[in-house]
Amino acid sequence: GFAKIDNHREIRVGCPEVIYCEGKTVEQLKSIIQYMLTKENNILATRASEEMYEAVKTICAEARYNPLGRTITIQKREDPLTASSYIAIVSAGTSDISVVEEAAETAIILGNRVEKIMDVGVAGIHRLLAKMDIIRGAKVVIVVAGMEGALASVIGGLVDKPIIAVPTSVGYGANFGGLSALLSMLNSCASGVSVVNIDNGFGAAYNASIINQL
Amino acid sequence: GFAKIDNHREIRVGCPEVIYCEGKTVEQLKSIIQYMLTKENNILATRASEEMYEAVKTICAEARYNPLGRTITIQKREDPLTASSYIAIVSAGTSDISVVEEAAETAIILGNRVEKIMDVGVAGIHRLLAKMDIIRGAKVVIVVAGMEGALASVIGGLVDKPIIAVPTSVGYGANFGGLSALLSMLNSCASGVSVVNIDNGFGAAYNASIINQL
Amino acid sequence: GFAKIDNHREIRVGCPEVIYCEGKTVEQLKSIIQYMLTKENNILATRASEEMYEAVKTICAEARYNPLGRTITIQKREDPLTASSYIAIVSAGTSDISVVEEAAETAIILGNRVEKIMDVGVAGIHRLLAKMDIIRGAKVVIVVAGMEGALASVIGGLVDKPIIAVPTSVGYGANFGGLSALLSMLNSCASGVSVVNIDNGFGAAYNASIINQL
Amino acid sequence: GFAKIDNHREIRVGCPEVIYCEGKTVEQLKSIIQYMLTKENNILATRASEEMYEAVKTICAEARYNPLGRTITIQKREDPLTASSYIAIVSAGTSDISVVEEAAETAIILGNRVEKIMDVGVAGIHRLLAKMDIIRGAKVVIVVAGMEGALASVIGGLVDKPIIAVPTSVGYGANFGGLSALLSMLNSCASGVSVVNIDNGFGAAYNASIINQL
Amino acid sequence: GFAKIDNHREIRVGCPEVIYCEGKTVEQLKSIIQYMLTKENNILATRASEEMYEAVKTICAEARYNPLGRTITIQKREDPLTASSYIAIVSAGTSDISVVEEAAETAIILGNRVEKIMDVGVAGIHRLLAKMDIIRGAKVVIVVAGMEGALASVIGGLVDKPIIAVPTSVGYGANFGGLSALLSMLNSCASGVSVVNIDNGFGAAYNASIINQL
Amino acid sequence: GFAKIDNHREIRVGCPEVIYCEGKTVEQLKSIIQYMLTKENNILATRASEEMYEAVKTICAEARYNPLGRTITIQKREDPLTASSYIAIVSAGTSDISVVEEAAETAIILGNRVEKIMDVGVAGIHRLLAKMDIIRGAKVVIVVAGMEGALASVIGGLVDKPIIAVPTSVGYGANFGGLSALLSMLNSCASGVSVVNIDNGFGAAYNASIINQL
Amino acid sequence: GFAKIDNHREIRVGCPEVIYCEGKTVEQLKSIIQYMLTKENNILATRASEEMYEAVKTICAEARYNPLGRTITIQKREDPLTASSYIAIVSAGTSDISVVEEAAETAIILGNRVEKIMDVGVAGIHRLLAKMDIIRGAKVVIVVAGMEGALASVIGGLVDKPIIAVPTSVGYGANFGGLSALLSMLNSCASGVSVVNIDNGFGAAYNASIINQL
Amino acid sequence: GFAKIDNHREIRVGCPEVIYCEGKTVEQLKSIIQYMLTKENNILATRASEEMYEAVKTICAEARYNPLGRTITIQKREDPLTASSYIAIVSAGTSDISVVEEAAETAIILGNRVEKIMDVGVAGIHRLLAKMDIIRGAKVVIVVAGMEGALASVIGGLVDKPIIAVPTSVGYGANFGGLSALLSMLNSCASGVSVVNIDNGFGAAYNASIINQL
Ligand SMILES: Nc1ncnc2c1ncn2[C@@H]1O[C@H](COP(=O)(O)O)[C@@H](O)[C@H]1O
Ligand SMILES: Nc1ncnc2c1ncn2[C@@H]1O[C@H](COP(=O)(O)O)[C@@H](O)[C@H]1O
Ligand SMILES: Nc1ncnc2c1ncn2[C@@H]1O[C@H](COP(=O)(O)O)[C@@H](O)[C@H]1O
Ligand SMILES: Nc1ncnc2c1ncn2[C@@H]1O[C@H](COP(=O)(O)O)[C@@H](O)[C@H]1O
Ligand SMILES: [Mg+2]
Ligand SMILES: [Mg+2]
Ligand SMILES: [Mg+2]
Ligand SMILES: [Mg+2]
Ligand SMILES: [Mg+2]
Ligand SMILES: [Mg+2]
Ligand SMILES: [Mg+2]
Ligand SMILES: [Mg+2]
Repeated sequence: GFAKIDNHREIRVGCPEVIYCEGKTVEQLKSIIQYMLTKENNILATRASEEMYEAVKTICAEARYNPLGRTITIQKREDPLTASSYIAIVSAGTSDISVVEEAAETAIILGNRVEKIMDVGVAGIHRLLAKMDIIRGAKVVIVVAGMEGALASVIGGLVDKPIIAVPTSVGYGANFGGLSALLSMLNSCASGVSVVNIDNGFGAAYNASIINQL
Repeated sequence: GFAKIDNHREIRVGCPEVIYCEGKTVEQLKSIIQYMLTKENNILATRASEEMYEAVKTICAEARYNPLGRTITIQKREDPLTASSYIAIVSAGTSDISVVEEAAETAIILGNRVEKIMDVGVAGIHRLLAKMDIIRGAKVVIVVAGMEGALASVIGGLVDKPIIAVPTSVGYGANFGGLSALLSMLNSCASGVSVVNIDNGFGAAYNASIINQL
Repeated sequence: GFAKIDNHREIRVGCPEVIYCEGKTVEQLKSIIQYMLTKENNILATRASEEMYEAVKTICAEARYNPLGRTITIQKREDPLTASSYIAIVSAGTSDISVVEEAAETAIILGNRVEKIMDVGVAGIHRLLAKMDIIRGAKVVIVVAGMEGALASVIGGLVDKPIIAVPTSVGYGANFGGLSALLSMLNSCASGVSVVNIDNGFGAAYNASIINQL
Repeated sequence: GFAKIDNHREIRVGCPEVIYCEGKTVEQLKSIIQYMLTKENNILATRASEEMYEAVKTICAEARYNPLGRTITIQKREDPLTASSYIAIVSAGTSDISVVEEAAETAIILGNRVEKIMDVGVAGIHRLLAKMDIIRGAKVVIVVAGMEGALASVIGGLVDKPIIAVPTSVGYGANFGGLSALLSMLNSCASGVSVVNIDNGFGAAYNASIINQL
Repeated sequence: GFAKIDNHREIRVGCPEVIYCEGKTVEQLKSIIQYMLTKENNILATRASEEMYEAVKTICAEARYNPLGRTITIQKREDPLTASSYIAIVSAGTSDISVVEEAAETAIILGNRVEKIMDVGVAGIHRLLAKMDIIRGAKVVIVVAGMEGALASVIGGLVDKPIIAVPTSVGYGANFGGLSALLSMLNSCASGVSVVNIDNGFGAAYNASIINQL
Repeated sequence: GFAKIDNHREIRVGCPEVIYCEGKTVEQLKSIIQYMLTKENNILATRASEEMYEAVKTICAEARYNPLGRTITIQKREDPLTASSYIAIVSAGTSDISVVEEAAETAIILGNRVEKIMDVGVAGIHRLLAKMDIIRGAKVVIVVAGMEGALASVIGGLVDKPIIAVPTSVGYGANFGGLSALLSMLNSCASGVSVVNIDNGFGAAYNASIINQL
Repeated sequence: GFAKIDNHREIRVGCPEVIYCEGKTVEQLKSIIQYMLTKENNILATRASEEMYEAVKTICAEARYNPLGRTITIQKREDPLTASSYIAIVSAGTSDISVVEEAAETAIILGNRVEKIMDVGVAGIHRLLAKMDIIRGAKVVIVVAGMEGALASVIGGLVDKPIIAVPTSVGYGANFGGLSALLSMLNSCASGVSVVNIDNGFGAAYNASIINQL
Repeated sequence: GFAKIDNHREIRVGCPEVIYCEGKTVEQLKSIIQYMLTKENNILATRASEEMYEAVKTICAEARYNPLGRTITIQKREDPLTASSYIAIVSAGTSDISVVEEAAETAIILGNRVEKIMDVGVAGIHRLLAKMDIIRGAKVVIVVAGMEGALASVIGGLVDKPIIAVPTSVGYGANFGGLSALLSMLNSCASGVSVVNIDNGFGAAYNASIINQL
C-alpha cells in the first residue's frame, strides 16, 4: 500500500518511526496509527492539525495534542526519563515557541529530561547570562532562533557542550523564510555548533536525544 | 570625456567626491587625480592597487598608501579632527582587517577621531565586554563582521548609539561571498542597526562621519 | 514563562522594548501588555491585527490603532517632541504607505517631530525636487521605496544628512518580495545611505530617532 | 564542421551574424572570419582578446580593435550613417566604459550615428540634467549602469523615447555580479524601459539599431 | 496627501500616468480617479479587482473592465488608432492570456492597432510558422511566454523588428515564479530581444507603443 | 481563439496533446475538451480541480477523475498495454503520492503497464532492497522523491536501466519548494539518472513511455 | 586507501566505472588507472588535463586524449558499435563544443554509433530544420545548449524520441553559470525532455547509451 | 593589536582557539603562533598554505604540515587518545579527501581516536555495506560528501549514533559550490543528522570531539 511502516527502525537506529503529517490525508494518518497501535512503541506524529488529532482520538483515547507544537503523542510505555542528564532548549524570541514545543515533545517521548529557557535573544543579552548555569548544566543544548540567529554563536562561545541549532522562519523580508538564520548558524564563528533544517524542532531533539543517551 | 568630476559635491552633500578605483585603468586614475589636485580638497581613492599608488606618487609626492585598506589618501587641508566625539570601529576577527582599515582611512580623511577595537567576535564574548566602555563612549559605532555577523546584534543590544554594520566576505562555503553576514545584519533583532554593502568600509565610514558631525 | 520583557532596555539602549506581534497569539500579546502597563513607559506594538487591537482595548481604553501602519500605541508619558529638529519620511509611491505609517508611528512615540513627503518617486522627479527644502531641513531622512528603490540614491546625491533606506515589497515578479529594492539600496552609488530590512519601517524610525536625538 | 555561419541572417533579420568570441579558440575565430571575408558584409566580433586581434590582422589588414570594448571590426561596405536620427548611449560611471564601447562599436558598424554621454550617474544628478537636450534629441536611448542601476529609471521619467537598459557587473558584494542593477532595471517604476543581459552592450545596440532604422 | 498625480507626464514622456492598483485601497483608487476625471486624459488602471471596478463605476459609468487582463479603462478622448502600423502580441500558451490582455488593453488605450496571436508556443512550432506573415507585418512584436520562454528566441531569429519579451509566471516548480522564462529571455541567442518584468504586460505595451509611434 | 489544439502532435511526436489545467478557467477547459472529443484520441488533463471534473462530466460521462493525482482521463481507444515490458514508479515517502498518481495515470493512458513501489525511501533502505527484483525487471524506472531526493542516486547505483527522477516539493524550510531534491538529483553521483521539473509526474511518465515503447 | 574501484559495476549497472579527474592529483589518477589496467574493461577519464594525459601515457601508450572534450580513453576491447541505431548529439553554438566532445567520447567508448550536428541554435532555425532527418533517425537525441537553452524545447516539439538535454555554462551575466539554460530545459513546454547537470556531457551520453542499447 | 587570542577558551568551551589562516598574512600567522607557543596548549592552524608552513617551521621545528588537509599542527602535550571510543570519518568520493584530512587532523589533535573509511559513496552501495561494522562501532560519525550528498541519509538510516554531515564543494554546475550537498543534508529524511558549513572538516571534527568525550 501507500505506506511501509519501518518497524525494526527502533532496533536499527534506536528510535521508533515518527509520522510526518504534512501532505498526508486524515485517513492515511489514521490507518498508519491504527497499525502502529498493534506494536508496543510510543507514537509521535508531528505537523499534525487539530482535525487530525480529533480523528486519532476516536481510535486512541490517550492520544495527547500540543497545539503550539502541533504534535500528537501516544505514550504506550512509561519509560523512566534520563536521570541526571538533561537537554536544554533555549530560544531567542516568543515567536519561536512552536519550534520549541515540537522539540520538547519529541525529546520527552524519546525519554529525556528537558529544560526550556525561552525569549533570551541577544537583543538583551543579560537575560541569557542570567540563565547560563542551567544551560551549562545540560549534556546537550538545542538553540532555537529566527531572524539573524545570533543566539547560537553566542551560546557556542560560552559552553563546552554540543549545540544543535534550529533556524526558524520567524521574521520577514530579507529573512527569506528562515534563510538568514540558517546561513548564520552554518557560518557560526563558534565551533561547537551543528545545524538542522529550518523549523525542524523534531530533528534537533531526535539528535539531542541520541547524544543525551550515549 | 570618460569622467565628470563632481566638484560641487562638497557643497551639496558635505563631502568631496571619492574615487572608486576598481575597473579603472591606471591612466584614468592618474588623470582624475591630476585634475582634482588643482582644487583645495583632500583626496581619497579606494580599492587602489600598489601599482596605482606608484603611478599617483609620480604626480603627488605626499600621497599615502594603506596596503591593508587599499586606499590612497592625499591630505591637502589639515582640518582639526572632531574633538570630543569619535567613531568606534569594532571588528569580529583578524581577517576583517582590510575592511576596518578602509573605514578608518575614510573616517580620518573626513575629519573624524577614530577608535579601533579589533578581533572581539562573539565566539569569545568576554573580549567584547572588556571593551564596552570605549564602544559606549563613541557617538556612532561601525561594526565589521563576516561569517555569521552576530557581533552587530550583540552590540546593538548593549549601546544606545547608531550602529552601522558592515558585513564582510570573510568565511567560505555557505557564507556565499558575504551573504550570510549581510542577511544576519539586516534581520538583526536589535533595533539600532543599519547596514551597508558587503565589504563597504568606505560607505560605513562616510555615513558615520555625517552622523558624527551632526 | 514564554516572554521575558526587557525592562531595563530603556536605560541600556535608550528606548523601551517594542512588541513584534507577528507569530504571537492574541492571548500572549494581551498578557505582555498587561505586564508593561504596570511600568511608566510608552507602549508600541507593531504588525498588530485589528483583532489584537480589539483585545488590547479591553484592558487599556487609551490604546490607539493605525490600520495602515498596523501599530497599536499607548502613550503613557506626554514627552515634548524634539523641538527644532525633525525626521523626514519620504516615499516613492502610494503603495508604500503602510511602511511610512509604521515608521511615523514609531518615530512619534519615541518623541520625534516628523514630516511625511509621499509619492515622489523618480518616475516624475520634479515632484521630488519641489520638496527638497523640507527634505534638506531634516536632521535625518528615511527613504521608503519598493520596485527598483532608486529614490534612495537620488536623495543621497542631493542632501548632506544621514539617509536610512527602507526597501519595500511593493511590486511583483522580479522584485522577488523586495529583493530588487534591497539590493538597489545596498549598492547605492550615493554614499550617505544605510539600509534596514525589507518593509522595516519600525527599524528605520528607531534608528532615525537615535540619530535625531544625538 | 563546428560552425554554421548564418549567411542569410541579413535578409531574414536585417543584420549580418556577429561573432561571439568567448569560448572560441583563436583558430576557430580565424577560420570563421576567413569564411566571412568571402562575402560583402561588414564583420563584427565581440569579446575578442588582443591575441585574437593579432591573429585576425594576419588575414585582414584593415581589421580594427577597440581594446576597451574588446571588439574587432572589419568595415567592408562604407554605408552612410543614419542622417538626422541618432542613438544616445548614456552611462552612470567611468567603470562602465567597456560596455559603452561595445555598444558604440556595434551601433556604428550597423550604420547608426551615436552620441556618448558618460559618467552622469544619479549620485550627482545635475551632471545628467545638463545633458538632457542631447539625450532627448535621440531616437532611442541606451542606458548603461552598474551598482543600483537607478539611472535607467531617472532617464525613463524624463524622456519620451524607447530606453534600452544595460545592467553592468560594475560594483562588488551585494551587486552579485550585476544582479542588483538587473533587478533594478526590470522593476523600473518608469514605464518606457526594457532590459538586456548584464554587460550586453552588443545586444542593446543591436536592438537600438533596429529601432533607429524603423 | 498620499498621492501626487503626475499631470504633466504626458508632456514629458508622451503618455498619461497609469494607476497600479496592487497595494492600494478601493478608497485610494476612487479618489485618484475622481481627480484624474477632471482632466482630459484617457485613464488606465492595471491589476484592478472586480470590487475596485464596481467602485469606479459609481463615479464614472463609461468605465470598462477586462476581467482576464484585470484592467479598468476610461476612454475620454477618441483618438484615431495608428493607421498602417500595428503591434503584434504573440503568446506561447493559453495560460498566458491574462498578460496578453493587459498588454492589449494598454496598447489600445495608448492609440495603437493590435494583432493578437495566441497559443503558438514552440512545442508545436508549425502553429507559429503558420502565423509568421502577420507577425512579420508588425512594426514591433511583443512575445509573452512562461515556462522556458523559448518563443522569444525563436521569433527573434525570424523577424527584423524590435521584440519586447514578457516572461510570465505560468508554470510551476523550477519556474520559480517566472525566473526561468526571465533568464531565458535575457540570455536569448537571438539579438533583437529586450525584456520587461515578469507578467508585465503593461510595460511591454507601453514600450511598444512608444516605438510604434516613433 | 485562445487555444490552438495541436492535433497532429500524435503523428509528429507520437503522443496526443495533453491539457495543463493550471491557469485555465473551467469554461476554457470545457471548450478545449469539447473540441478534442470530436477526434479519436484519448484525452488527459493534468492539474485539474474537482470542480473542473464536475464540468467535464456534464459533456462526457465516461470521464474519470483521480483526486490524488488531480487528473481527468477519457479513454476513447482501448489500446492493449505494453505486454512484457513495464514502467516501475518508485517513491520515497507517503507524501509523494500525488506525483506518483499523476505519473501512473499518464503512463497508463499512453498505453504502458505500470508497477508502483511506494514509501521505500533511504531512511529505511531494507524496504528498498526488498523490492529490487520488481524494480530491476522494469524497462525504465521513474523515481519520485522529495526532501533530499537521495533515492534516485541509490537506485541509480543498483540498476542498469534508464532512470527518470522527479524531485517533489515535499518537505519544508531549506527544501525551498523542491530545490533540494532537484539539485540532489541533478548532481547524482550515479550516472544513469536524468531529471524533470519539480512535481512533474506527467513529464516523467511521458518520457518513460517513449522509452518503454522504443 | 583513498579509492575503492567499483569493479563489479559493469555487472550491476551495465557500464564500467568512469574516472572523474577534477579534484584528484596526477598521482591519484595514475594509480587508479594502473589498477584498472589489470582488468579487461575499457577505460574512460573525464575532466582530465593535458598534464594528466602525459602522466597516463607513461604507463599506457595507447591512451588517447581529446583536448576539447578533456577526456582520456583507453580502448581495451574492440566491441562492435551498435549497428543500425545511433545517438544524435545536437548543439546550439560553436562554444558548446567541449560538452559535445565529452558526450561523443563517452558514447563511443560505451559502444554506440554517434552523429554530431553542431551550431544549429534557434537564432537561425533553418539550420536546424535542414538537419531534421538525421535527428529524427536517431534512437535517442542529446541536445547541448547554453544561454537560453531553447533548442531542447524546439527539438522536443519535432521528434518522437527521448531527448536528454544538457545545459551548458556558455554565456555570461544573467546566465549565472548555466542556470538559465538549466531552468529553461527543466521547464520545457515540450514533454519528451529530461535533463542532466550543467556541462555534463558524460552523464547525458551514459544515459543515452543505456537507452540506445535497450 | 589586530588579534586577541582567546586564551581561556579551553577552560570555557573545552578546546584551545584554532587559527583560521584564510585572509591572514604570513606575518600575522607567525606572530599569533609565536604568542601561542608561550602557552602549554597544542596548536592547530587550518587553511594554511605551504608558504605559511615554511614560515612557521622557522620558529617551531616540530610543526607538522598536512598538504591535503592544509593544516599545521604543533603537538605540545602528548595527551592519551580516547581509549575505546572513536570517531568514524566516512567519505563519498576520492575528491573529498582534503575535507577528510582537515577533519582527521582536528580530531586527533583534540585527543580522539579516528577511523577513516573513504570512497564509499552511494553509487556503489555495497562498498558502504562492507564497512558498516566499523561505522556502527564509532561513538559519533562524520559523513563527508559532495555532489548530491546522499551518503549522509543512507548512513543515517543505518546507525544509531549522532551523525555530523559535512557537505563538500566537490562537483560542478548545479552543485553551486556545495549548495546541492548542503541542502540535501539539511533535508535528510533520516533523523539523526546535523550539518556544518560546506567543506568545514574542522567544525565537524570539533563537534564530534565534544560528543566523543562526553
Ligand atoms: N516591525 C518590527 N520589525 C522588526 N523588529 C521588530 C518590529 N517590531 C518590534 N521589533 C523588535 O522585536 C523585538 C521583540 O521580539 P519578541 O521577543 O519575539 O517579542 C523587540 O525588541 C523589537 O526590538
Ligand atoms: N557580446 C555578445 N553578447 C551576446 N551575444 C552575442 C555577442 N556577440 C555576438 N553575439 C551573438 O552570438 C551569436 C554567435 O554565437 P556562436 O554560434 O556561438 O558563435 C551571434 O549570432 C550573435 O548574435
Ligand atoms: N502537469 C504538466 N506539467 C508540465 N507540462 C504539462 C503538464 N500537463 C500538460 N503539460 C504540457 O502543457 C502543454 C499545454 O499547455 P497550454 O498550451 O498552456 O495548454 C501540453 O502540450 C503538455 O505537453
Ligand atoms: N577551517 C575552519 N573553518 C571554520 N572555522 C574555523 C576554521 N579554522 C578555525 N576556525 C575558527 O576561526 C576562529 C578564528 O578566527 P579569527 O579570529 O579570524 O582568527 C577560531 O576560533 C576557530 O574556531
Ligand atoms: Mg522578546
Ligand atoms: Mg580571532
Ligand atoms: Mg505615484
Ligand atoms: Mg563618476
Ligand atoms: Mg497550448
Ligand atoms: Mg514513510
Ligand atoms: Mg553560431
Ligand atoms: Mg570513487
